[in-house]
Amino acid sequence: MKLEKLIGTALGNNKADLVIKNANIVDVFCGKITKGDVAVTDGVIVGIGEYSGENEYDAEGKYLMPGFIDAHVHIESSMVTPSEYSRLVIPKGVTSVVCDPHEIANVSGIDGIKFMMDDAKDAPLKFNFMLPSCVPATDFESSGAVIDAKDTKEFLEKYDFLGLAEMMNYPGLIYCDREVLEKVESSEIIDGHAPLLSGKELMAYAVTGIRTDHECSNVEEMNEKISLGMYAILRCGMHTKEFCEMVSGVDKNTVNRIAFCTDDKNAQYINETGTIQYCIQNAVNAGMDPIDAIKAATINPANCYGLKKLGAVAPGFKADLVLCENLVPDTIKAVWKDGVLVGKDGKDVYVTKKTANPEKVYNSVNIPDISADDLVCEFDKKTPVISVIPGSLVNKKVYKDSADGLTHLACIERHKASGNIGRCYVENYMFKNGAIASCIGHDSHNVTVAGDNKEDMLIAVNALGKSGGITVVSNGEVIGKLSLPVGGLMSDMPWEEVAKGHKEIEEAGKKVLVNAEIDPFMVLSFLPLPVIPELRLTDKGLFDVIDFKLL
Amino acid sequence: MKLEKLIGTALGNNKADLVIKNANIVDVFCGKITKGDVAVTDGVIVGIGEYSGENEYDAEGKYLMPGFIDAHVHIESSMVTPSEYSRLVIPKGVTSVVCDPHEIANVSGIDGIKFMMDDAKDAPLKFNFMLPSCVPATDFESSGAVIDAKDTKEFLEKYDFLGLAEMMNYPGLIYCDREVLEKVESSEIIDGHAPLLSGKELMAYAVTGIRTDHECSNVEEMNEKISLGMYAILRCGMHTKEFCEMVSGVDKNTVNRIAFCTDDKNAQYINETGTIQYCIQNAVNAGMDPIDAIKAATINPANCYGLKKLGAVAPGFKADLVLCENLVPDTIKAVWKDGVLVGKDGKDVYVTKKTANPEKVYNSVNIPDISADDLVCEFDKKTPVISVIPGSLVNKKVYKDSADGLTHLACIERHKASGNIGRCYVENYMFKNGAIASCIGHDSHNVTVAGDNKEDMLIAVNALGKSGGITVVSNGEVIGKLSLPVGGLMSDMPWEEVAKGHKEIEEAGKKVLVNAEIDPFMVLSFLPLPVIPELRLTDKGLFDVIDFKLL
Repeated sequence: MKLEKLIGTALGNNKADLVIKNANIVDVFCGKITKGDVAVTDGVIVGIGEYSGENEYDAEGKYLMPGFIDAHVHIESSMVTPSEYSRLVIPKGVTSVVCDPHEIANVSGIDGIKFMMDDAKDAPLKFNFMLPSCVPATDFESSGAVIDAKDTKEFLEKYDFLGLAEMMNYPGLIYCDREVLEKVESSEIIDGHAPLLSGKELMAYAVTGIRTDHECSNVEEMNEKISLGMYAILRCGMHTKEFCEMVSGVDKNTVNRIAFCTDDKNAQYINETGTIQYCIQNAVNAGMDPIDAIKAATINPANCYGLKKLGAVAPGFKADLVLCENLVPDTIKAVWKDGVLVGKDGKDVYVTKKTANPEKVYNSVNIPDISADDLVCEFDKKTPVISVIPGSLVNKKVYKDSADGLTHLACIERHKASGNIGRCYVENYMFKNGAIASCIGHDSHNVTVAGDNKEDMLIAVNALGKSGGITVVSNGEVIGKLSLPVGGLMSDMPWEEVAKGHKEIEEAGKKVLVNAEIDPFMVLSFLPLPVIPELRLTDKGLFDVIDFKLL
Repeated sequence: MKLEKLIGTALGNNKADLVIKNANIVDVFCGKITKGDVAVTDGVIVGIGEYSGENEYDAEGKYLMPGFIDAHVHIESSMVTPSEYSRLVIPKGVTSVVCDPHEIANVSGIDGIKFMMDDAKDAPLKFNFMLPSCVPATDFESSGAVIDAKDTKEFLEKYDFLGLAEMMNYPGLIYCDREVLEKVESSEIIDGHAPLLSGKELMAYAVTGIRTDHECSNVEEMNEKISLGMYAILRCGMHTKEFCEMVSGVDKNTVNRIAFCTDDKNAQYINETGTIQYCIQNAVNAGMDPIDAIKAATINPANCYGLKKLGAVAPGFKADLVLCENLVPDTIKAVWKDGVLVGKDGKDVYVTKKTANPEKVYNSVNIPDISADDLVCEFDKKTPVISVIPGSLVNKKVYKDSADGLTHLACIERHKASGNIGRCYVENYMFKNGAIASCIGHDSHNVTVAGDNKEDMLIAVNALGKSGGITVVSNGEVIGKLSLPVGGLMSDMPWEEVAKGHKEIEEAGKKVLVNAEIDPFMVLSFLPLPVIPELRLTDKGLFDVIDFKLL
C-alpha cells in the first residue's frame, strides 16, 4: 500500500500529507535552484512542482534544502546527552549525525554506549552510531574500559552500528598489531583519523579500507588523502582558520569528496554559532560556491557513509528539510525530520522523551587521596615541554632552558583510583594564581589539571567530586564549577542550563588564564590525547606521538 | 595474514607481486595525472609511488587508468556468449559490466539466465548480473518465459544478482500494477528505463527508488532525471549523435551523476570500435575533459551501483587497470584484472574455460507452418504506420495516404508456435526485391521479418530453422545467414567468427535495403519493443507506446 500511496501522490492524484509551497529548492545534483512546491507523504518526498496537501506551509520564497548531516561528532563533547543534543541542533538544521561515542566508552564501555543509544532513540535527530575502535586510544594511558577485537566483533553484530569509528591508532595499524587488524577486518565502513600521515604510511593506512579522515589541517594533506580514495571530512569547530584554508583549496574535482563535521563542540558554542550551518557559512566566506557548501553538508556525507535516501530534495528521499531565510543558512526558519516539523524559528517544537537510565554512568570519578606535591615535578631542561599552538589541536614538542612562564600540568587516573599521575610543563598556556581541572581529557578522560601553583591545582581536583566536571580555582577559592555527572562528561540538565554553566566557567577561566585567545578547557581536554602530534601527557607520563612512545 | 601482507607491501617492506613502473596514473578523485609506479599484491592496489615487485612491467610513461565499467549492457546483443564477450572486451579495457540477461530470459527464463551466469563465471570480466524485471516486457506480446513477482523475490534471494534490471514497464509502475510494485519492492538497487518520461510521471517513477536511467535522448531529459536523484547512464552504441549532444550538456555539477553504457552492441561493432573506450573517445570529441570522461567510465558507475573497491587507482582498490598509449584511450596496450595481465596489444592473453551446458537454450525456435499471405496485410490509411528515425531507437507514429514506399513488417510468435502474427507497414526502411528475418526482436524475441514482397519474407522466415538467427533473402534466394543457436540470440562460436559472420550478413543486407544510413538488423530488432515510443509491432499486433495499448 505504501508505494501506491507515494506514486498516487507524486502524480497529484491525491493530496500530500504536507506541501511546502513556494520554495526556492536547492538541487544538490544539478547545483541549481528550482522554484516550486515540495510534496511529502509518509515522511518521504514525493514530488517537486505544483502540489496541494492536507497541510500546507508557505515558504514565501525562502530556501529549502536537505537536512544537514554532521559527518563526525562526539556528542559527549557538547556536554549534553543525545536527547538534549537533538533539541540543540535540530532547530539549527542538523537532521542526521554520524557519531562516535568513544568518550563515554572510555569511561563506561558498552554500558556507556548503550546509554547513549537509549537516550538517542526517541529523538528526531538521526544518530548513526559508529562503534569506537580505540578504547583506550592507546596502551599508553589508563581508561575506564577496554573494547578489544573480540568485543568489537560481538558488538558490531549485536547492536545497530553503522561501522567502526575513527581508527586513531594508526601506528598500531601500520605496524600490524593483530588486535587492531582484527577490528578493522570486522567492519566494511571504517572511519579514519590520521593527522599528517603521508606517503607510504598513508598508503598502508588506506589499503586496509579506511575511507575517511577528518584530521586534515592543510590543503596538501587534504588532497593527498582524497587522491587515495578517502573522503576528507573538514572539521569546523570554533577555530575556523584551517577549515577555511582547506575549503579554499577545494576544486571542481575534489568538491564531491569532502564533507563537513564538528567533531568536538560544546553546547554553548553550538548555541552561539550552530554546527554544520557554521561550516557552510565559513566555507562560503572562504570563497566556496554556496550550493557546493550545501552539498558538503548533505549529499556528500550521505554518499560517503552509504546513508540511503538522504541528502537531497528529490522524490523517494527522506523528507529531512531545512528552510532558510537565505541560500547561505543564517536564519533557519523551519526544520522537518521525516516530514514532521521539529524546529521552528530556532526552537525545537517536538516533545522530548527521556527514558534512558543513566545509573550505570553516574558517579564515575574515582580519585585516591593525593597531596599537592603529587601534582608537580621538578623542571629538567632535558625533558621536553608541550608548546600549545593557539587555534590548533596539534602542538609542538619543545625544549626550554628554565620553567619561567611555563605551567604545571598533571594527569590523574580517575577510573580505578590507581594513583597513576603524569606530570609535565606546558608553554603558551599561562596562569596567574590559579588552576583549572577537568574530567574531560581525551580519550581516557582522566583528570587533567593545569595551574601556576600546586595548592590551587589540588583544590581544583578535589572540587570535582565523584560526579566530576570542570572546576576553576583562583587564589585558593573555587570560582567556577560545571557539574557533569553523566560519565564525568555530560550534564543531565537541559542544554540551555549547560550552555549557561559553560559560559560561567569560561568567565571564571578568563580570570586565571593569561592568554585570552585560548579556550582553556578545550586545550586542557586535548593535552592527554596521545594520537594527535606532537607531545601529550597521559596518566602514565609524557608521550611522544611522533615516535609513539612514552618518554 | 592478508592485511599484514598488503600493509607491509604498501610500506615498501616487501616486494609487491606486480609493479607497473613509470606510469602516468589517472587520479579520478583529484582529476589529475600522477607520475609513478603502481604496486599490486593479492590482486589489490597497495601503493602509488616508488615500488619494486617480483614482476615488473614498464609502462614507459603511458597512461594507467582504472578498468572500464559498462554500466548497462545486454550481453546477448553482442551475439556471443559471456565467455566470448569477455575475450572480446577485456583487451579493450572493460573489466566489469552491469548486465541484464533479459534477452535470454524472455526466451528461456531462469534456465537462460543460469546459462549466462554459468558461462560467465570463469571469465576475468566481472559480470554483475541484474535480474530482469520485465519478462515479458509487457502483456502485449508473447515471450518464451515469464518471471513474475514471486519468481523475482525467489531468484533475488537464491542467486547472485546485484539488483533488479531495467524497469521498462513504467506505465505498469505508475498505474500501480501490483505485480510490478512487488518486483520493485523486492530490491534496493533498481535500474530504470523511462524514455521521455517527465514531470509528475517521472516523479512517480523516481519515488519508487529507481536511481538510474539509460534512455535519455536529450540534455533537458538528462538534467531532469539527474535533478531527481537518478544517474543518467549515457548510451553510446554505433550511433553517437544523441550521446555527444548529451555529453556537451554535462557540467561540473552533473558530471558526477553520469555513467557510460553500450546497452546493445554486436560483436562486429565492438571489435571495430570498442565499447566504453568508444564512449570516452566520443565524449572527449564532444568537448568533455578526458579525465571527466574516464570518471564516467570508472568511478561514477562504481558509485552508482555501490561496486566496492572499484573504479579508481588507489590503495585498497581492486587492481583492475588499463594502460593506454594516450590519455584518451585509443590504443590499449595492456589490461589487468585483479592484478593479472589479461589483455595485451588488443588480444586476450588468458585461458578461456567453457563449462556451461547450453542444452536447455538450444533449438528454441518454434514456428508453425505459415504461408506468404500470413505475413502481409491490406493497407488502410486509418491504421498508423511506424516511421523509423535514422540513428535513434525512438520512432514516430504516422498516417499515410498510400502504401507507396512502405515496407511490410510481420512479427511471428516463435516460442510455442501459437500462430500469433502481427502485421503492419513501416516507413524509412525500404527494401528492393528482398527481405530480412531475425529471431532477435526485443524483448520477447519473436521472429520479425521485413521486406517488399511476401514471398521473400516467407523464405527468410523459413531459413531461420530451429536454431534461429538472422537471414537475408534477395529475389527468392537466401544470400546471408548468421546462425545463432543459443536461444536464437547468440552464436556458440568464437567472437571472431561471429563478427565475420555479421559483416557478411551486413553486406547481404545492403543488397536488399535501400536506405544506406540504416543498420537494418538493429532497426528490425527494436521494431517489436513495446516500451520505446512511439509505435511498435508485436506478435499481438500494432502497439501504441504513448497510450500503452494495442491498436
